[in-house]
Amino acid sequence: MKIAIVNGPNLNLTGKREKEHYGEKSFETFIQEMKQGFPQIELEYFQSNMEGEIIDELHLLDKDKAVKGILLNAGGYTHSSVAIGDAVAAIDKPVIEVHMSNIFAREDYRHISYIGKHAIGSIAGFGMESYLLGLLKLLNQR
Amino acid sequence: MKIAIVNGPNLNLTGKREKEHYGEKSFETFIQEMKQGFPQIELEYFQSNMEGEIIDELHLLDKDKAVKGILLNAGGYTHSSVAIGDAVAAIDKPVIEVHMSNIFAREDYRHISYIGKHAIGSIAGFGMESYLLGLLKLLNQR
Amino acid sequence: MKIAIVNGPNLNLTGKREKEHYGEKSFETFIQEMKQGFPQIELEYFQSNMEGEIIDELHLLDKDKAVKGILLNAGGYTHSSVAIGDAVAAIDKPVIEVHMSNIFAREDYRHISYIGKHAIGSIAGFGMESYLLGLLKLLNQR
Amino acid sequence: MKIAIVNGPNLNLTGKREKEHYGEKSFETFIQEMKQGFPQIELEYFQSNMEGEIIDELHLLDKDKAVKGILLNAGGYTHSSVAIGDAVAAIDKPVIEVHMSNIFAREDYRHISYIGKHAIGSIAGFGMESYLLGLLKLLNQR
Amino acid sequence: MKIAIVNGPNLNLTGKREKEHYGEKSFETFIQEMKQGFPQIELEYFQSNMEGEIIDELHLLDKDKAVKGILLNAGGYTHSSVAIGDAVAAIDKPVIEVHMSNIFAREDYRHISYIGKHAIGSIAGFGMESYLLGLLKLLNQR
Amino acid sequence: MKIAIVNGPNLNLTGKREKEHYGEKSFETFIQEMKQGFPQIELEYFQSNMEGEIIDELHLLDKDKAVKGILLNAGGYTHSSVAIGDAVAAIDKPVIEVHMSNIFAREDYRHISYIGKHAIGSIAGFGMESYLLGLLKLLNQR
Amino acid sequence: MKIAIVNGPNLNLTGKREKEHYGEKSFETFIQEMKQGFPQIELEYFQSNMEGEIIDELHLLDKDKAVKGILLNAGGYTHSSVAIGDAVAAIDKPVIEVHMSNIFAREDYRHISYIGKHAIGSIAGFGMESYLLGLLKLLNQR
Amino acid sequence: MKIAIVNGPNLNLTGKREKEHYGEKSFETFIQEMKQGFPQIELEYFQSNMEGEIIDELHLLDKDKAVKGILLNAGGYTHSSVAIGDAVAAIDKPVIEVHMSNIFAREDYRHISYIGKHAIGSIAGFGMESYLLGLLKLLNQR
Amino acid sequence: MKIAIVNGPNLNLTGKREKEHYGEKSFETFIQEMKQGFPQIELEYFQSNMEGEIIDELHLLDKDKAVKGILLNAGGYTHSSVAIGDAVAAIDKPVIEVHMSNIFAREDYRHISYIGKHAIGSIAGFGMESYLLGLLKLLNQR
Amino acid sequence: MKIAIVNGPNLNLTGKREKEHYGEKSFETFIQEMKQGFPQIELEYFQSNMEGEIIDELHLLDKDKAVKGILLNAGGYTHSSVAIGDAVAAIDKPVIEVHMSNIFAREDYRHISYIGKHAIGSIAGFGMESYLLGLLKLLNQR
Amino acid sequence: MKIAIVNGPNLNLTGKREKEHYGEKSFETFIQEMKQGFPQIELEYFQSNMEGEIIDELHLLDKDKAVKGILLNAGGYTHSSVAIGDAVAAIDKPVIEVHMSNIFAREDYRHISYIGKHAIGSIAGFGMESYLLGLLKLLNQR
Amino acid sequence: MKIAIVNGPNLNLTGKREKEHYGEKSFETFIQEMKQGFPQIELEYFQSNMEGEIIDELHLLDKDKAVKGILLNAGGYTHSSVAIGDAVAAIDKPVIEVHMSNIFAREDYRHISYIGKHAIGSIAGFGMESYLLGLLKLLNQR
Repeated sequence: MKIAIVNGPNLNLTGKREKEHYGEKSFETFIQEMKQGFPQIELEYFQSNMEGEIIDELHLLDKDKAVKGILLNAGGYTHSSVAIGDAVAAIDKPVIEVHMSNIFAREDYRHISYIGKHAIGSIAGFGMESYLLGLLKLLNQR
Repeated sequence: MKIAIVNGPNLNLTGKREKEHYGEKSFETFIQEMKQGFPQIELEYFQSNMEGEIIDELHLLDKDKAVKGILLNAGGYTHSSVAIGDAVAAIDKPVIEVHMSNIFAREDYRHISYIGKHAIGSIAGFGMESYLLGLLKLLNQR
Repeated sequence: MKIAIVNGPNLNLTGKREKEHYGEKSFETFIQEMKQGFPQIELEYFQSNMEGEIIDELHLLDKDKAVKGILLNAGGYTHSSVAIGDAVAAIDKPVIEVHMSNIFAREDYRHISYIGKHAIGSIAGFGMESYLLGLLKLLNQR
Repeated sequence: MKIAIVNGPNLNLTGKREKEHYGEKSFETFIQEMKQGFPQIELEYFQSNMEGEIIDELHLLDKDKAVKGILLNAGGYTHSSVAIGDAVAAIDKPVIEVHMSNIFAREDYRHISYIGKHAIGSIAGFGMESYLLGLLKLLNQR
Repeated sequence: MKIAIVNGPNLNLTGKREKEHYGEKSFETFIQEMKQGFPQIELEYFQSNMEGEIIDELHLLDKDKAVKGILLNAGGYTHSSVAIGDAVAAIDKPVIEVHMSNIFAREDYRHISYIGKHAIGSIAGFGMESYLLGLLKLLNQR
Repeated sequence: MKIAIVNGPNLNLTGKREKEHYGEKSFETFIQEMKQGFPQIELEYFQSNMEGEIIDELHLLDKDKAVKGILLNAGGYTHSSVAIGDAVAAIDKPVIEVHMSNIFAREDYRHISYIGKHAIGSIAGFGMESYLLGLLKLLNQR
Repeated sequence: MKIAIVNGPNLNLTGKREKEHYGEKSFETFIQEMKQGFPQIELEYFQSNMEGEIIDELHLLDKDKAVKGILLNAGGYTHSSVAIGDAVAAIDKPVIEVHMSNIFAREDYRHISYIGKHAIGSIAGFGMESYLLGLLKLLNQR
Repeated sequence: MKIAIVNGPNLNLTGKREKEHYGEKSFETFIQEMKQGFPQIELEYFQSNMEGEIIDELHLLDKDKAVKGILLNAGGYTHSSVAIGDAVAAIDKPVIEVHMSNIFAREDYRHISYIGKHAIGSIAGFGMESYLLGLLKLLNQR
Repeated sequence: MKIAIVNGPNLNLTGKREKEHYGEKSFETFIQEMKQGFPQIELEYFQSNMEGEIIDELHLLDKDKAVKGILLNAGGYTHSSVAIGDAVAAIDKPVIEVHMSNIFAREDYRHISYIGKHAIGSIAGFGMESYLLGLLKLLNQR
Repeated sequence: MKIAIVNGPNLNLTGKREKEHYGEKSFETFIQEMKQGFPQIELEYFQSNMEGEIIDELHLLDKDKAVKGILLNAGGYTHSSVAIGDAVAAIDKPVIEVHMSNIFAREDYRHISYIGKHAIGSIAGFGMESYLLGLLKLLNQR
Repeated sequence: MKIAIVNGPNLNLTGKREKEHYGEKSFETFIQEMKQGFPQIELEYFQSNMEGEIIDELHLLDKDKAVKGILLNAGGYTHSSVAIGDAVAAIDKPVIEVHMSNIFAREDYRHISYIGKHAIGSIAGFGMESYLLGLLKLLNQR
Repeated sequence: MKIAIVNGPNLNLTGKREKEHYGEKSFETFIQEMKQGFPQIELEYFQSNMEGEIIDELHLLDKDKAVKGILLNAGGYTHSSVAIGDAVAAIDKPVIEVHMSNIFAREDYRHISYIGKHAIGSIAGFGMESYLLGLLKLLNQR
């Protein structure tokens, strides 16, 4: 059984930049910890700064029968991408919208999500734990 | 150690009305299950249809040293109550905004939250599991 | 058979204040006249200035098998209360939105109703006769 | 004594189209039933798909001393016609705005009425009974 | 040489209704006075409550070589009719937008004109004198 | 088999006015050419500057069993007429929204269509060819 | 002679929470100081977190002949409560809107007041001195 | 008897700049022609680029008993100056809003006027003739 | 010790115009009364109809060490002047925003203040007493 | 002679997902059918989920002298991409905006097109036939 | 050859107030440095807090043949003054909009400029260097 | 020392298309001229039509110690890309927003920039000289 994490633009900088905001840990480290903590699942990690590659990845994951669900943090594309929202709507896998920061405590234009309405739910504000909670939910998903 | 669940208007009907939407389980049953699943914590459950009583409860919980955190589902008040948002901002306990339904897939006026910006994060769309995930996060909170 | 009238904030002042606007008759007198005019029905009258008590009352009326329908004048809460709107949506009894004044001839913020969309219909502008017409409709309801 | 019913665009299709929405009964049948039920009044029925003919009719009815009041369902013109609103304001007869469907449960652009503010009141959502309630109100009008 | 006055909805009531607003004089009387005051011109007067008949009339006037210009008071259609605005744009005759009342001192929705941008200019607020001033301008037009 | 073309306000001027915009050809000539090009179908042409007559015509066409579909260019009414939109929704015949000019390259208020959502589709920007394409689509319609 | 101070949600926390914002002094202490400073008046103090109880209190104060005026700080309800605004409009006592913080230097949604238009005036930004200034005004009121 | 013309910012450039827009004639020449054409009236001409000097001038003119009325072209201040609008409201002399260009055919922000609602009427689009028409109206004013 | 009163456009007319609105007393008289009532302070009074002169005055007052605070009623400029707001932000003296009328009970465009956010607080609606209250506050200011 | 079809995000899923919405036929099949139906033209098909690759392709097609025109369905990018709109404006080839679904019958954010104003026209709502009609238009293009 | 710098409200305080924001250097010093650095040009410096004086100055500079271009920092008037924008449009000299601070990183109301569209370009965010860059551009201007 | 120029979508067409708008010179030629004019710096030039590649490039440049600053012209992405704005915020290098055309003189949707607030400043409207000015600024940057 696979769970996929799909990360959008600038999230490759996590742990390297704006540490006061996102902490010292890189995503690579976090993924390693997750893999150790959940040996029973195969954790796929994908990151791209390109809107279209995120859509491609969602299409690919949809075809992979082993994938049980997707944790999607589309970063800045969350607030502008009708196309990623359409991809989430088009595929069959359950998608959970994830954010590290509390988007409601930031600029107004971050309060709009084109993805949320097509996802099964959303988790925001808990740093990397947001992914952990999403993972637990997907494991529990019928 | 205590964790408090504070529920707002109409959530007392859960399991009795709109079952196709919210499932067959009542909150009382859910709280019982949670208590059995987490015997190490004291789970306080409070529900009121009154905006002011929710504020009162938040004030009370803030004074109780045993309370480690609060899961707040303010229901319809989420989208209109500056006052509950102010209460969340005024108290010291960590508050997580919780919703059973995916508010981003509903009416436009449900996309605005006066609480989210003062909470540490939000979880929406997973039915009663939204509370479970919030509980796990609070247990993990430093 | 019961019909319930649920009145919101400030409507307890009817007949005592702003008489040029709402007339000289108090609601108590009006209810008495209604009871005499319709001896075949039991007329329940409830008024509260509290948003949450109105929700409580709607929940209670919903459980009462004798109640055939509800005339709801939520006063100022009409224009701000997502929560009362949710309560109307959650219960099974038919609810008619009633207003004494013509809300379309008043301030812009009174043109929005969070209740109307969940009610079966609305009657506004006829003073206390608005209730009378609503009552006639409920008596006629299949 | 006369009461006039003035119907706007597409209401001539009632009972012939969208029966699931507006029922099986045509307006002609309904007017007949109303005439039998209220033999003491002369019921004038006017329908036009033309904005200007509705204005003409309102002007004509205003000159007819026997007309006690007008039930106006301007259909789609309700939401766009400043001119019909002006006509209602210009004449002396009491006008009640009537709608068969619950306009608050439909598209946003149907929540605006250019007529309501000049009418004495409005009744919406009760199918043909909306007219019946309006008629009862006009009979009761001083 | 002809000058045409084209009046829109409800202006046939001038002098008969809302006298405190529009004065005691009817348009027929005013046209007679104008004809006497300006014997050198042929004054054509057209009034209709129908949006489409106003468009028809503008088309007709455009074909009449004797017509030097048009004074257009589209009444309530001013604020909603893209189609009359298109007609003014489509014809070659100079059109002056005329209003008896000061539309800027009335409701917000009367501050929008779909006609003004296609007219050569506008005159508003001077009662029937608005037409007189427009007439003087057209006589002076090269 | 009949196909109907319904044209709204000012389209009777095509070929006579604003030739730089709409070309030299009149609609009468175009209809003749269409009739010659498609001898197997009966082409009905209707034009009116009146909103209500367009609604009347749509009702009439709906009753005519021979009519396979309707090409509707409502001109300026496209952007203001809830009533024509309602008529399109109420009838059973397939309606295609047609425009000669590219409405997206014009004023903002022309970007709103009350008809589009009830039509099966829309074609805009190709001059008289817009009708030709619509006709081909209707011929192909199951 | 009585002056009433009516405080809304969260103001019971003054002096206990957010001291950097609102200072170290509690309202109880402030009221004591005010009573000592103005021995000639009876100072009534009421605080509630409930919208409806504030309305109830305003109704009660209106009936009390000794009450000369009311200082109302509705807290977060200021920006959402049509109902409290209606209560201020319905009663005869002069009401002054009071705020401790400068609401114009805070979030946009705090720039809207449903109370201000019905009050005789407003005072904001001076901490507890805002009440003192309001008191001086009421003492001076004819 | 005096009539005053008050011109706002940039109108001193008329006839010197943007001649294709405003013509070759300077205001000084126009005023001379007006004085010759209307020898029975004293024509006062005032121009300033300063918002405050325009207000000062309106105050002065109001005190001058000989002044029968004012033609005010506030130029760009028309669309931003609450203060000049207040001055027009505060004085007793009739003020007519005048514009040389057709403001409705220009940018959206020129469609708003803070002056129009306090003036008795407005004339726009006729170049310098706009002033002439305004003058004729003032001469005719009771 | 000096306190400065800075008044904006049209306030020089107080007591001379719109007496029903602002009373019979002129500002000169009011200043005299204030001087007599507060002999211990030097009261500077400045009024200008010019936005820029108000800014100049604020700059000057800022340099005067004796000035303890400023009462600023910017009149109509309150709602349009980013520049005066910037001046208030740039200087060190405490500024209180003052209004004679209740700006919240007037037009919507008067509900916006570019000054309030930079002032320490605001007082509105009490006629000339608004200045008196502001003065008391400044005297009390640390 | 070549005609190019450029498809945007998620359109590669056509015929594989959401079949109830887009039918059973894949684009590959459709292109084959088109090629057989129009042997005289070379049909280029390009699909990408990447906004930038669509821009690249438009640039490339513009340089290819054989290309007579382009059918562009930018999918979700239609509603957010200023950049693709700029590309359409920058190239010389005629571009037709194409949509399979009726975008006016979907969410509000799909009613905005950044492409339409730079295209020669648009066709929406006819499934794959939208492309066919666009092709016919391009073949007919001078 | 002359280059003119025109500064608007509050810029006379530069170097004296808000030094953390605008630095320690006064404009007088900066102008001296510029004059030394560019001995081949005559540098005219004008500052006023008055909107109208800025317009006057722009008119004067336009008449001076030696003036090659203008650097305009209209300060707070940038965001409210249609009149200064009109002045920039009316004159022939090239105008560059200059700002010391990054207006896009400040309040929303500073993102609107009535000047920018009439200037040849804009430079913002580089403190006094913004003027230097503008000067270099003007020297380079054909 | 390196300075990087990062260009977004369609800027590869400069000098080849829309020459009346952007001139005859290609970017390649311009970069050559810049390199000759500033031999002391290494000028890196990057262009992509892909939003994500621009983000990748910004990340890369940030890691390159030799890079002193970045001139970023994001083209159409300026107005829609939260993600590029986030990238600018995340990196340490100073970024200057550059535009060839005067974006304030174009469509409304080009007045919004998601990049400007995170850049140190912006330069727009001077064609390729905008880059030159930005370069001078970066050379001067401490």
